[in-house]
Amino acid sequence: MDIISLRRDLHQHPEVGFTEFRTASKVVEVLTSLKYNVIFGKDALDGDSRRGVPPTEVLQETFNRALQDGANPEILQEMEGGYTAVIGTLKGKTDGPTVAFRFDMDALPVTESTDSDHFPQTNGFRSKYEGNMHACAHDGHTVIGLGLAEKLADQNFAGTVKLIFQPAEEGVRGAYSIVQKGILDDVDYLYCMHLGTDVPLGEFHGGSSGFLASTKMAAHFHGVSSHAGASPEKGKNALLGAATALLNIHAIPRFSSGSTRINVGILNGGTAANIIPAHAKMIIETRSVTEETNAEMEKRVRNIVAHSAGMHELEYEIEIIGQAITIHCDQELVDLSMEEARNVNGFSTIKACRESGSAGSEDASFMIRRVQDNGGKGTYMIIGTDIPAPHHHPKFDIQEEVLPRSVELLNLIARRLLK
Amino acid sequence: MDIISLRRDLHQHPEVGFTEFRTASKVVEVLTSLKYNVIFGKDALDGDSRRGVPPTEVLQETFNRALQDGANPEILQEMEGGYTAVIGTLKGKTDGPTVAFRFDMDALPVTESTDSDHFPQTNGFRSKYEGNMHACAHDGHTVIGLGLAEKLADQNFAGTVKLIFQPAEEGVRGAYSIVQKGILDDVDYLYCMHLGTDVPLGEFHGGSSGFLASTKMAAHFHGVSSHAGASPEKGKNALLGAATALLNIHAIPRFSSGSTRINVGILNGGTAANIIPAHAKMIIETRSVTEETNAEMEKRVRNIVAHSAGMHELEYEIEIIGQAITIHCDQELVDLSMEEARNVNGFSTIKACRESGSAGSEDASFMIRRVQDNGGKGTYMIIGTDIPAPHHHPKFDIQEEVLPRSVELLNLIARRLLK
Amino acid sequence: MDIISLRRDLHQHPEVGFTEFRTASKVVEVLTSLKYNVIFGKDALDGDSRRGVPPTEVLQETFNRALQDGANPEILQEMEGGYTAVIGTLKGKTDGPTVAFRFDMDALPVTESTDSDHFPQTNGFRSKYEGNMHACAHDGHTVIGLGLAEKLADQNFAGTVKLIFQPAEEGVRGAYSIVQKGILDDVDYLYCMHLGTDVPLGEFHGGSSGFLASTKMAAHFHGVSSHAGASPEKGKNALLGAATALLNIHAIPRFSSGSTRINVGILNGGTAANIIPAHAKMIIETRSVTEETNAEMEKRVRNIVAHSAGMHELEYEIEIIGQAITIHCDQELVDLSMEEARNVNGFSTIKACRESGSAGSEDASFMIRRVQDNGGKGTYMIIGTDIPAPHHHPKFDIQEEVLPRSVELLNLIARRLLK
Amino acid sequence: MDIISLRRDLHQHPEVGFTEFRTASKVVEVLTSLKYNVIFGKDALDGDSRRGVPPTEVLQETFNRALQDGANPEILQEMEGGYTAVIGTLKGKTDGPTVAFRFDMDALPVTESTDSDHFPQTNGFRSKYEGNMHACAHDGHTVIGLGLAEKLADQNFAGTVKLIFQPAEEGVRGAYSIVQKGILDDVDYLYCMHLGTDVPLGEFHGGSSGFLASTKMAAHFHGVSSHAGASPEKGKNALLGAATALLNIHAIPRFSSGSTRINVGILNGGTAANIIPAHAKMIIETRSVTEETNAEMEKRVRNIVAHSAGMHELEYEIEIIGQAITIHCDQELVDLSMEEARNVNGFSTIKACRESGSAGSEDASFMIRRVQDNGGKGTYMIIGTDIPAPHHHPKFDIQEEVLPRSVELLNLIARRLLK
Repeated sequence: MDIISLRRDLHQHPEVGFTEFRTASKVVEVLTSLKYNVIFGKDALDGDSRRGVPPTEVLQETFNRALQDGANPEILQEMEGGYTAVIGTLKGKTDGPTVAFRFDMDALPVTESTDSDHFPQTNGFRSKYEGNMHACAHDGHTVIGLGLAEKLADQNFAGTVKLIFQPAEEGVRGAYSIVQKGILDDVDYLYCMHLGTDVPLGEFHGGSSGFLASTKMAAHFHGVSSHAGASPEKGKNALLGAATALLNIHAIPRFSSGSTRINVGILNGGTAANIIPAHAKMIIETRSVTEETNAEMEKRVRNIVAHSAGMHELEYEIEIIGQAITIHCDQELVDLSMEEARNVNGFSTIKACRESGSAGSEDASFMIRRVQDNGGKGTYMIIGTDIPAPHHHPKFDIQEEVLPRSVELLNLIARRLLK
Repeated sequence: MDIISLRRDLHQHPEVGFTEFRTASKVVEVLTSLKYNVIFGKDALDGDSRRGVPPTEVLQETFNRALQDGANPEILQEMEGGYTAVIGTLKGKTDGPTVAFRFDMDALPVTESTDSDHFPQTNGFRSKYEGNMHACAHDGHTVIGLGLAEKLADQNFAGTVKLIFQPAEEGVRGAYSIVQKGILDDVDYLYCMHLGTDVPLGEFHGGSSGFLASTKMAAHFHGVSSHAGASPEKGKNALLGAATALLNIHAIPRFSSGSTRINVGILNGGTAANIIPAHAKMIIETRSVTEETNAEMEKRVRNIVAHSAGMHELEYEIEIIGQAITIHCDQELVDLSMEEARNVNGFSTIKACRESGSAGSEDASFMIRRVQDNGGKGTYMIIGTDIPAPHHHPKFDIQEEVLPRSVELLNLIARRLLK
Repeated sequence: MDIISLRRDLHQHPEVGFTEFRTASKVVEVLTSLKYNVIFGKDALDGDSRRGVPPTEVLQETFNRALQDGANPEILQEMEGGYTAVIGTLKGKTDGPTVAFRFDMDALPVTESTDSDHFPQTNGFRSKYEGNMHACAHDGHTVIGLGLAEKLADQNFAGTVKLIFQPAEEGVRGAYSIVQKGILDDVDYLYCMHLGTDVPLGEFHGGSSGFLASTKMAAHFHGVSSHAGASPEKGKNALLGAATALLNIHAIPRFSSGSTRINVGILNGGTAANIIPAHAKMIIETRSVTEETNAEMEKRVRNIVAHSAGMHELEYEIEIIGQAITIHCDQELVDLSMEEARNVNGFSTIKACRESGSAGSEDASFMIRRVQDNGGKGTYMIIGTDIPAPHHHPKFDIQEEVLPRSVELLNLIARRLLK
Repeated sequence: MDIISLRRDLHQHPEVGFTEFRTASKVVEVLTSLKYNVIFGKDALDGDSRRGVPPTEVLQETFNRALQDGANPEILQEMEGGYTAVIGTLKGKTDGPTVAFRFDMDALPVTESTDSDHFPQTNGFRSKYEGNMHACAHDGHTVIGLGLAEKLADQNFAGTVKLIFQPAEEGVRGAYSIVQKGILDDVDYLYCMHLGTDVPLGEFHGGSSGFLASTKMAAHFHGVSSHAGASPEKGKNALLGAATALLNIHAIPRFSSGSTRINVGILNGGTAANIIPAHAKMIIETRSVTEETNAEMEKRVRNIVAHSAGMHELEYEIEIIGQAITIHCDQELVDLSMEEARNVNGFSTIKACRESGSAGSEDASFMIRRVQDNGGKGTYMIIGTDIPAPHHHPKFDIQEEVLPRSVELLNLIARRLLK
C-alpha cells in the first residue's frame, strides 16, 4: 500500500465531521481486504451520543458527493445520516491483551491556499471540495492507521489489535459516541497520537498533558415576534435575552481552582429591522484544567441561559455540541513508546509528556478514560513534523516522510505489547 | 385662628412622610378644641398598608424631636412608630350626605434656601429642621384644612363633614393605608386639592387629569461575599445581578397602549474593593397612563428582578414603597366647585379639568377611587399661586393670600353639598 | 390595456427593493408606447442616496433572472446595479401646473401561500419567484399608475403630468434617491396613495396622518479573532461590543416630547465556538412622532454604537439603510380628492385624513416634503379594499375591482388640477 | 520597654489607614527617647502619592480623637491631614551599609468580637474605637519595630539602621508615598515581615512569593438629573453608565499570560425613585501574577469606564486608591534570615520562600522594588503564630509570645548585616 498516494487522495477529498463518507468507505475497503473484522455504520457508534451532527440536508448532500466520487454504495448506505466511524479488529495467532490505536479522519471548514508555495497546490492534490481542507493532519493520521493495519495483517502476535477510525474530532464531537457504543470496553492498552502541534520533525513525545476539559453548547432562545412600531409590547424579545446571557456568561468569575476559559463564539438572531426578534442562537464554550470546574462552569452557563430566557419570557433549549475531558497518560505506556521510538530511524529527540501550551481539548480523552476506568492504560503521543503554517491555517501541511516512520513506530509498539 | 401664623409655624417644623408627629399633634389639638370627633394613631390608618415607612431609628429620632419641640405627649404616644394620620369628623344639625376633604401634611428632604430673597428666610420662619423643607405647599394645605374646620365648627349644615389629614403623600405612600382602614367607606363626596403646580394666583381648576398610575419598588439582592482574590468563585455577586436587572428594566419596551415611564432611581451595593459584593438594593419606578399597563410593567420588573437574581444564584425580595393609580374627576363636582369659585373674591380665571403636564402621580387617587367604587364622587382641584421656584426646589414658596381664599372656597363647597 | 392581466403578471414576478428589473422594464415599455417622455436608470435616481442596496451578487442574479424572463435587454442594461426607478412625463396641449403621482413597485421577501383558498394560487398567478411575494399591493399600485398613464395619453389637459414609479418603498429606502435626483423639484401637486391598510372596499380617505419619522441603520463591529483557549486576551470581541450596544440602545429613555419606538431587529456575529468573535452586524430602527426626536434617537444610537465599539477596541461603521420623515397632508388636496371620489362609482364612504394606527413609516414623506418645501402641495390617500390577510402576510391579496376604480379617480384628480 | 503592654495599648486604640495619629505619635515619642533621628509628617511621605486618603471630616475627627486620647499635640500637629508615617534612623559607631526594616501600623474597619473566648475581650484590651480593630496583626508589627529600636539603641554596629513605620497598608495605599519621598533611596538591605498568614507558631519563612500586582480604582460618573416622569430624556443617566461598565469590566477576558482577578466591589448611585440618577461611584480592583498583565487590565478598565460614560454622555474620573506590584525576594537575604532564625529559641521549622496561596497583594512591594532598582536587596518574611480566626475576622488574634522572639530575630539579622 502506498500510504503517501493514499494520503494525497484523502487530502484532495477532505470531509468534515460526520460527513467522512468517502474516507470511511475507503477505510472499510482496505481493512476488509486485509482480512480484518470490520464494523461500521450504526454498529460502530451510538447515534444519540454524537454531538453537533450537521443538518440533514448537509448529511445528504455530502453523502451524494461521496457516491459521485466513487465510494462503494453498499458500504456507504450503512453510513447514511452520519454514521462514519470504522473499527477494524484482528486477532493474533495466540491469545493476549487487546491493544487499540485511535485515528481521527475529519477535515476542517477551511478554504485551502492556492499559493504557489503550498505543496498540495503545486503537487496537484489541493482540496477538490472547495471550503473544506485537511488542515490538521487527520489525512496523515488515517493513512498511518491503514499502514499499521497492513503491517499487522500477518497476525503474528499474541492478542488482539483494534484500530479505531474516528469521525468528528474537530469540535470534540465524535469519540464519545464510539465509547458509548462499548468499543473501548475490551481494550487493555490504548495509544492515541497527533502529528505536528509545533513539535519539529524528528522529535517524539510519548505522552501529553494539559488538555482542558471543555463543553461546547448551543443555546436556542424562542420568543414571540411583533411589529416594532405597532405593538412592541406584544413581542418577547429573543435578542434581549441572548445579549443578557452573553454579557453574564462572560462575567462568570475566575476560579481559584485553576485556569478556565469562556467564550460565546456565535450569536445569531432576528429577521428584520421592524420586527421584535423572536429567535436567537448562541454557541458557547467552557474550558478548565479540571473536570469539576468545567462542570461548574457549564452549570453556571445553563443557569444564566435559563434566567436570561425567563427574564424575557422566552423558551429555550441547550444542547451539548461538543465535549472533552482531561487526559492523564499512563507512565508505563509513555515509557514503552519512548523505548520503541529509539528503535526507529528518524526520531532523534525523544521526550516524555508534552505540556499542551495551547489550552486545547481532545475527545480521545473519553476513550483513554474509559480504558483506564476498566483498569487498562492509555497515552496520547505527539509525533513531530515541521509545518509551514499553523494548524487550521489555509497553508498548513505536513512532511510526508513522517508517515512511514510513524507506521513503523506504532507497529513496534503493538508487537511489544502483543508478544 | 390665624392660619398664616400657623402655616409659618408648620413651615418652620417640616416633617417628612410618617414622621409628621408634631404637625399631626397640632392638628389633633385644633380639631379637638373645635369639638370634632378626632381619630388618629392606629385608628386612622392601617399600619401594614403604609409604603416606604422610614427605619425605626429615624421614626424614634423624629418622635423625640417632636416631643422636645413641645408636641403633646399624650397625643404623640398614639402616633409612635409613624401612625401620623388624623381624621376629624363633625355631624351637622340635620342628616345629610358625608362630604370629605383631604389635606396632606408631609415635607420633603430638601435643604431650604438661606438666600435673602427667600421669603421664609427673611421673615424668620425658614426650616429649623435642617435638610427638611415644606417645598410642596403641604404646610399650606394643612392650615387650609384647619381653617375649614373652624368655619364648619358651627355645625350649621345637613350631613357630615370629614377632614382627612394624610401623612406621606410624597412618594405616594400614605393615602392607601387610610383607605385600607375604611376611612373613605362612608364618604359620598370627596374633594382633594393642591396649591400651585404652575397655576398662577387667581386661577382655579375644578379638576385634574393626566395623573399617571405608578408603582415604586425596592428590590433587595442577597448573595454571598468572598475574597475577590482568593476565591472569587465562592461569591454570589449581588451587583452583577443588580446591574443586569438595571439594564433589562430600562429595556422594557414602549407600549402601544399609551405613554409609560421607567426608572431605576437608586442602586447601592457592595462593601469593599476586594470583596465580592453580597448585597445590593435598587429603587425602581414605573408609570403609565393606564393602570393595566402599569400593572404589566410592574409584573415585568418583578420578573426581571427575579431572573437577574436567579442568574447569579441570589436571593431577593421586592417591596412596594409607593403606589398611585389614575384619577378621573366627576364632572358634577368639577362644575360645582367652579360655580362656587366664582363666588370667592380673588379667583379671576376659572377652568375645568387641568391636564397634568408633568407626568406626576398622586395617591389621593386611591381615596377618590374608593369613593367612586362605592357610588360616590370625587375630584382633585388646583388652586393657583405664583411660585418663585418650582415645587421641590430650595426656594419654593407660596403666596399666603391664597390660604384664606382657599378656606372660603372649600367652606362654600361644603355648605353647598350639605344643605 | 388590461390592467387586471398586467397586475397578475406582476404578481407572478415579484421583485424586492432595487431588483425591480423586470417590473421597471415593463413600465418603461408601456410609458414609451404611450409617448411619454421616459427617464430611467441613473437619470431617475441618485445612486449614492439609495439606502439598503442589496449585495452585488443579488443584484446580478436578479438582473439575470429578469433577462431570462424576457425583460428588454436594452432597457435593462441601464438599470444594472439597481437603478430601477422610472419617471414618465407628458405635457398637455396647453401650459399649466405640474401634477405628479407616485407609485411604488417593490415586493417583499415573503413566501406566498399555496393554500387552496388563496386567490392567486387558484387562479394561476402565484409568485414564480419562490420566497418573494407582492404582499403589500404594490403590484396593484404599479398597474394603477400605468392605467392612469393610458388615460392621460390624450394630452387633453393644461400643464404637465409626471408619473413616478419608485423602487424599494419597503424598508423606506428608495424615495429619497429620487428626491435627491431633483425629480420632485418642478412638481406643484403630488398625490401618493396606498391600497388597503385596513380600509374596506368602497371607503376612501383623502389624506393620512400619523406616519412616524424613522431611521433604519446597520451597525458593523470589527474586532480581532483569536483562539478562545490559547489566547483569549488577544481577541477584540465584536459580540461583547454588540451585546452591550443592544442592551443600551433598548435603554434609550422615553421622550416627553411624544411617542417613540426603538428596536434592534437583527444581530449576527461570530464564526466558531472556539474563536473570539471578530465581527458582528446589527440592524437598528428608531421611530418617533417628530423628526426632531427621531434625530435625537438616531444620534443616541450612533453614540451608543461608537462607545460600545470603543469599549472593546473595535472598529465600526453605521450605514443608514432606510429613512422616513413625517407626512402633513395639504387640506386643499385632501378636499379636492374627496370631491372627485364622490364622482366615481364604488366609493360609498368618503373621509378626510386617516390616522395611521400602526406606527408605520413611508418614504413618500420625502417626496411630499420636497414639494411642500418648494411651495407646492401634497397628500397621501388611502383607497380601501378588503383583504383576506394582513399586509405582509403569505395570504395577503386585494380585490381587483379596486384597480380600474382607482385609475378613474386619479384621472379625475389630474384633470381637475390640470384644467 | 514592655512590648506586650504596648501592643495591648495599640490594640485598644486601632486606627485605620492615614488616621494612625495616636499610634504614630507614640512611635515618634519612643524613637525620640531612644535618640533616633526621627522624621515624620510631611517629611516622611509624599502627600500627593498617598492613595485612598479618607475624607477631610474623617481625618479631622480621628485627629481630634487622638488628641483627646492623650497624643502629644506638638507631634500630632505635623500629622494633620493624614501624614502618619514615621522614619527612625540611627547610625552605628562605624560606617557600613544601610539596613531598613518596615512595619505597618494601620487597623481595619472591623467590629471586634465581644465573645468571652476572645482574648482581648477577656483581658480588657478590646478595641475602644468601635467599628475599628487590629485584625491583621499590625499592632504586633509596630511593637516589634519599637522593640527592635530599643535593642539597636546601643549603636554597637557598623552602618545605619532605618526603621520605617508605614500607614495604610490595608488597601495597599501608603507605601508608595514613602517611596516617592525618597526614604528608600539610600537603603542597601530591606527586610519586611508579616505575622501569621496561616503559618503556625514556631514556623519561619525567610521570604515570600506569589504576591499579585494589583490596582484599586474609584470611578466616578457624573450625569444630569431630571424628573423621571416629566422629562426622562433630559437626564443623563449615571447608573446606566455604571451598570454597563460593571458588566463589561467583569467580561474582561482571562489572560493566557497567567492568573488574573477582577472585581467591582462597590457601586453606589442615584438619589430618589423619581429622579434620573446623576451620579454613581464604583470601586474596582484588578490583580495579576504579572505587572504587565495587571497594567493591561487597568488599561482595559479605564477604557471601559471611559466609553460607558461616553455612551450615556456622562463625565467621569478615575482615581487610583490602592496599588501593589509583585515581590521577588533576594535569595541572599532569605538565606541569611533563615540562618539567624536557627539561632532564636522558638523557631522550630525554618523554610525558604512561602508561596502566597491567597492571591493577596502587599504594597511593601514598592519599597522592595525601589531598593532592588538601586542595586540593593530585599525580602518579605513570614513569622508564624497560631490564630483563632482568619485575618480580618472579628475574632482574629495573635500569640503574644511571638513578639519578643521576632524582635530578637530582627536584631540578629541587623547585627549580622551591620558588622
